[in-house]
Amino acid sequence: MELKLHEDRFFSPNQPQKNLAIQYYNLIKDLPIISPHGHVNPALFADPKANLGSPAELLIMPDHYIYRMLYSQGIDLQRLGIKDTNTILSTSDHREIWQLFADHYYLFRGTPTSIWLNHELSTVFGVSEKLCSDTAQDIFTQIENKLVLEEFSPRNLFDQFNIEVLCTTDAAWDRLEYHQLIRNSQWKRDIRPTFRPDGVVNLDSTGWADNIMKLSEVTKVDIHSYNQFIDALEIQRKHFKEFGAIATDHAVLIPFTQRISMSDAEDIFQRALIGDLYPEDAYRFSAHMLMEMARMSIEDGLVMQIHPGSFRNHNQFILNRYGSDRGADIPIQTEFTRNLYELLNEYGNHPKFSLILFTLDESTYGRELAPLAGHYPALKIGPPWWFFDSINGMRRYFDQVIETTGLYNTVGFNDDTRAFPSIPARHDLWRRVSANWVAELTIRRIIDEDDGKQMIVDLAYNLAKKSYNLEKSS
Amino acid sequence: MELKLHEDRFFSPNQPQKNLAIQYYNLIKDLPIISPHGHVNPALFADPKANLGSPAELLIMPDHYIYRMLYSQGIDLQRLGIKDTNTILSTSDHREIWQLFADHYYLFRGTPTSIWLNHELSTVFGVSEKLCSDTAQDIFTQIENKLVLEEFSPRNLFDQFNIEVLCTTDAAWDRLEYHQLIRNSQWKRDIRPTFRPDGVVNLDSTGWADNIMKLSEVTKVDIHSYNQFIDALEIQRKHFKEFGAIATDHAVLIPFTQRISMSDAEDIFQRALIGDLYPEDAYRFSAHMLMEMARMSIEDGLVMQIHPGSFRNHNQFILNRYGSDRGADIPIQTEFTRNLYELLNEYGNHPKFSLILFTLDESTYGRELAPLAGHYPALKIGPPWWFFDSINGMRRYFDQVIETTGLYNTVGFNDDTRAFPSIPARHDLWRRVSANWVAELTIRRIIDEDDGKQMIVDLAYNLAKKSYNLEKSS
Amino acid sequence: MELKLHEDRFFSPNQPQKNLAIQYYNLIKDLPIISPHGHVNPALFADPKANLGSPAELLIMPDHYIYRMLYSQGIDLQRLGIKDTNTILSTSDHREIWQLFADHYYLFRGTPTSIWLNHELSTVFGVSEKLCSDTAQDIFTQIENKLVLEEFSPRNLFDQFNIEVLCTTDAAWDRLEYHQLIRNSQWKRDIRPTFRPDGVVNLDSTGWADNIMKLSEVTKVDIHSYNQFIDALEIQRKHFKEFGAIATDHAVLIPFTQRISMSDAEDIFQRALIGDLYPEDAYRFSAHMLMEMARMSIEDGLVMQIHPGSFRNHNQFILNRYGSDRGADIPIQTEFTRNLYELLNEYGNHPKFSLILFTLDESTYGRELAPLAGHYPALKIGPPWWFFDSINGMRRYFDQVIETTGLYNTVGFNDDTRAFPSIPARHDLWRRVSANWVAELTIRRIIDEDDGKQMIVDLAYNLAKKSYNLEKSS
Repeated sequence: MELKLHEDRFFSPNQPQKNLAIQYYNLIKDLPIISPHGHVNPALFADPKANLGSPAELLIMPDHYIYRMLYSQGIDLQRLGIKDTNTILSTSDHREIWQLFADHYYLFRGTPTSIWLNHELSTVFGVSEKLCSDTAQDIFTQIENKLVLEEFSPRNLFDQFNIEVLCTTDAAWDRLEYHQLIRNSQWKRDIRPTFRPDGVVNLDSTGWADNIMKLSEVTKVDIHSYNQFIDALEIQRKHFKEFGAIATDHAVLIPFTQRISMSDAEDIFQRALIGDLYPEDAYRFSAHMLMEMARMSIEDGLVMQIHPGSFRNHNQFILNRYGSDRGADIPIQTEFTRNLYELLNEYGNHPKFSLILFTLDESTYGRELAPLAGHYPALKIGPPWWFFDSINGMRRYFDQVIETTGLYNTVGFNDDTRAFPSIPARHDLWRRVSANWVAELTIRRIIDEDDGKQMIVDLAYNLAKKSYNLEKSS
Repeated sequence: MELKLHEDRFFSPNQPQKNLAIQYYNLIKDLPIISPHGHVNPALFADPKANLGSPAELLIMPDHYIYRMLYSQGIDLQRLGIKDTNTILSTSDHREIWQLFADHYYLFRGTPTSIWLNHELSTVFGVSEKLCSDTAQDIFTQIENKLVLEEFSPRNLFDQFNIEVLCTTDAAWDRLEYHQLIRNSQWKRDIRPTFRPDGVVNLDSTGWADNIMKLSEVTKVDIHSYNQFIDALEIQRKHFKEFGAIATDHAVLIPFTQRISMSDAEDIFQRALIGDLYPEDAYRFSAHMLMEMARMSIEDGLVMQIHPGSFRNHNQFILNRYGSDRGADIPIQTEFTRNLYELLNEYGNHPKFSLILFTLDESTYGRELAPLAGHYPALKIGPPWWFFDSINGMRRYFDQVIETTGLYNTVGFNDDTRAFPSIPARHDLWRRVSANWVAELTIRRIIDEDDGKQMIVDLAYNLAKKSYNLEKSS
Repeated sequence: MELKLHEDRFFSPNQPQKNLAIQYYNLIKDLPIISPHGHVNPALFADPKANLGSPAELLIMPDHYIYRMLYSQGIDLQRLGIKDTNTILSTSDHREIWQLFADHYYLFRGTPTSIWLNHELSTVFGVSEKLCSDTAQDIFTQIENKLVLEEFSPRNLFDQFNIEVLCTTDAAWDRLEYHQLIRNSQWKRDIRPTFRPDGVVNLDSTGWADNIMKLSEVTKVDIHSYNQFIDALEIQRKHFKEFGAIATDHAVLIPFTQRISMSDAEDIFQRALIGDLYPEDAYRFSAHMLMEMARMSIEDGLVMQIHPGSFRNHNQFILNRYGSDRGADIPIQTEFTRNLYELLNEYGNHPKFSLILFTLDESTYGRELAPLAGHYPALKIGPPWWFFDSINGMRRYFDQVIETTGLYNTVGFNDDTRAFPSIPARHDLWRRVSANWVAELTIRRIIDEDDGKQMIVDLAYNLAKKSYNLEKSS
């Protein structure tokens, strides 16, 4: 079977709408990529000779979208090369891993994973056959042969992908060495860190005490009190800003916000230091720290992002054996109207504050997020996240969000990817679905073509740049 | 740019469906408007010489859909002419307000607000250019010149809009003076009040004590006890009925229903009178009063409407400075199956009871509302409300409600508008989306064309008239 | 009016998509029916001379989809022949019941009930006129005349319907006499029981003590302790397996799972035996028994099904007068991520465990069910259930489930019907909606046609057979 990316893919089957969608898509398909939030490892760009590894290392082993699906069908993670932390050996034959994946590639029919992978195989590696059991080894060879070429180095791919800005995500205690190496090099590209303090502000994080120690070391602040902790965070935010950071990112289970008294904060922090938390301590402290992070954002201008509602490591067996981020994070119901009440009342009207909300609970799109962002000046809605970064996920997002909040309280697209070579695939999907949506609005006379032409460029490029304050800094 | 309302607007891009939708739409486009629930000020019709004010006063200043969007983009409400209750001066240059609005009209792309406004500008005021920065002043002048003409008086527009019935919403303590003036006049049109007792049955309402005093005055009942309170409500319901009222309306945060004992009711009411409520008092009393309101509805035949789930005045800053109804009401999750258990078990099987439910939580459409209304004889589902009074909101409503509950457990459309000149626009949108939906059912052979022709007339006219008991009274 | 089933019914109005949908549909329309979960009475097949009764007995009186809709419009159930348990006479004139139904058949416009019934009338009984007041008596006569013919016996219809496997649902204490009679007969067809222990594991079930006594009798285990109770359940599961059972089924209000200690289990069980339950007893015991049922499933290989979230008998008046299953069961919000945490952590990784989840809360499709089934090997998602067994319900299911979980973590279709003659109609609807969905994926280039051809056969036949372990046993 041939693998072919059709020019009109993903557009409506209705011919007039499709024609118009193609017109809109053509206006934006070659625009540079703004990637203001994601998880690509900056080490890839620190060393000009960095190499992307084998096809399995590049495309399977770092991608929890892929191995959660295989695991759900009874395939052990160690057979996919995932390291078992109990030191039982995992498969190290990458051709075997690739074959196993290819044998089960049918599982991904209709999923964004197959759309992204087909796009990568075709446009990045020039593969022209459909991946299946029979073609697996041939395709492995083709990719392997490409990956050793200089033009397939991360830096060269960065340019080939036409990326204008790439933001990574970095722990609050990160020294940003790789970002330093990139700065020191002759390779002048726009790569920025993002400040993510979850591991120190969520007191029940795995390794919290170690993280605090690392934060102490990097900031040279001995953290023995709540105030020193706050000082250290402010120092690191400044450090991140010096490396171009434009945003922070916060993962919380429940986006509850509530300031506590300084003495309560100190008491809880002391209990955390001796490892003796009361039941509600972590929950109350996280709620308080969201308030503090908002305060700091107003002071230093970093855009605040909240990614709530993921019940991390639902499967203890997988956590114990393979660690975190193995495809076992499951969403829960999320509530914003009441949980964000205090934060929005204190900071939501402030002209210097910018808060971007994401959700894994689509029932909040029309009910809570769109009305909130359609009122509070500080608030914007992030693009469809994680499971909803998909054709239908985007369509439901446009459907449920825009009529209430308007396009201009959203922030365009961010790929949020760990898988570097999937970045163009993800932006291309967003651009196609956007073009199809704007075409439908136009053809149904909800907007006119002048509006449509502006909206499509905003969707593909301007909104992301503006929402993450990248206009000023460029 | 030309502003043009295309004949085929909002219909599917699929040509056969569109053709059929147009056919259906033509059957109903000229039917009179039934507006059984809304917030138009009856004073407009009390004085034959009433005037609608400037274009800004007519189209911007009373419309929280418009200024919440501008506020969400950082535009101060006082720049839009909204009165600051702290007596800081607001802008009084209406041309300036209009210009500011026009400069930001692009924010409304894809929203129902722009659809309604374009419809009003084109059909009511004959504007033929698209509103934008350049055309703002010209369009202001055009509207201004129209608004001084006699044919643009509210009464003349009422007839031009082809309104058969218009129901207003009036506080329980209202004297209905404007309704009285309309009755006393030579102008015989069907304008009716709706009984809304929120400000006295919700004990934590702002100004509750004042409201009780007003209720005392208008009913001549000294309200010092729960029983006197109930008497006063019954007297006012009768008063409203004498002015043609056919319904009551109840806004509650949570639609919990539960009868409490007479002595509990009396105790709580006494605490309210001395301003010393216990924490659950207001919640329990509201739950009880919904039961009482249902009982009274069975006795006097007023249709009962519940509009639950809006967290009012979420933004305290806006409330303190500009008052209520300023675009800061945000929905919360809503539960019906358990909350309405007691009310439906006591009254849901009663042939004389009619209860219409609305929701701001679309996840309840298919899960709770459609199964409940598809069983209880007393229950009907109201049309898509507020944020969901939109093309997609209506489509999701039809999609999720009808397969379970059938068309005949819904009540047609009500515009629920404060903005008088938008009434035809809103009904036109409902009629177009309805025609498009019935056309899709027909073309997919889910219904035949005979069914379709009846359904479209029911949607546009019959259901509203029947559900609000307007057949009997006309 | 003519009643005509168009060949292209229910497909998209878009011509290219429709053409492809027809192609896909033609691949599967004649495949045998796999019905792995439903509520058909096995007695129908025990007696070769069994008769389906009058048209009203066959099509109205057993179908709560039909009479809940009529009841919701104020029609008393006794007028529909539903027996009033207070011995007030119900209508026994079946022609009158049929006429009443036909007079109100317009209520079902756009509902799956009308789709199913039109399909039955046309394909099973050869009716060619649309059911309405005028045609009611003629159509009654036509059906009546057919039902007395030998070819309309349940056994002959079973073959005519091309049913390969039919699973019934049977109480845990059932003796399976009808299944025994079928086995003893010359008529070798694949009809299997399903083990449903709700009436004994949910301690607050109506008639729990009686059910326990019946379970004692059929197993010959004197049930005076929790351990004896468990023994009896295991004996009956074995008994069911001997009659071909491949699954169990569990209805719970809330799918909470948590093991309790043996002594707690014993204490609670003893309290249940003396009828003196503590408030949380039933809830805790059900949560525990789901754990036990999972354990047993791993041991005996029965697939476990959970149908949660239905608030049974919401209307006490109907329950008291007409009994259960009268259309008064209303869904509630359902939570899976936290509630199933313990069960999935204990058994979700087990290769011998298979758990199929259903839901009446569609907001869980994309948020919880798809991510859970897209990770845990034991977990699969059942087809759209009850109110969502409809054109739109299926479309929303495909839309929200597949991108995250893939097609192969779903289980195909089960009709879940009580109404035997509606089985082909329900499978035909599923096959048409499936074909239309796969056609859309294909035409939008999300999959290719080779994938599409496999997916449509999987949807119509293979997935159900595989998920319910019917491949091995056939």
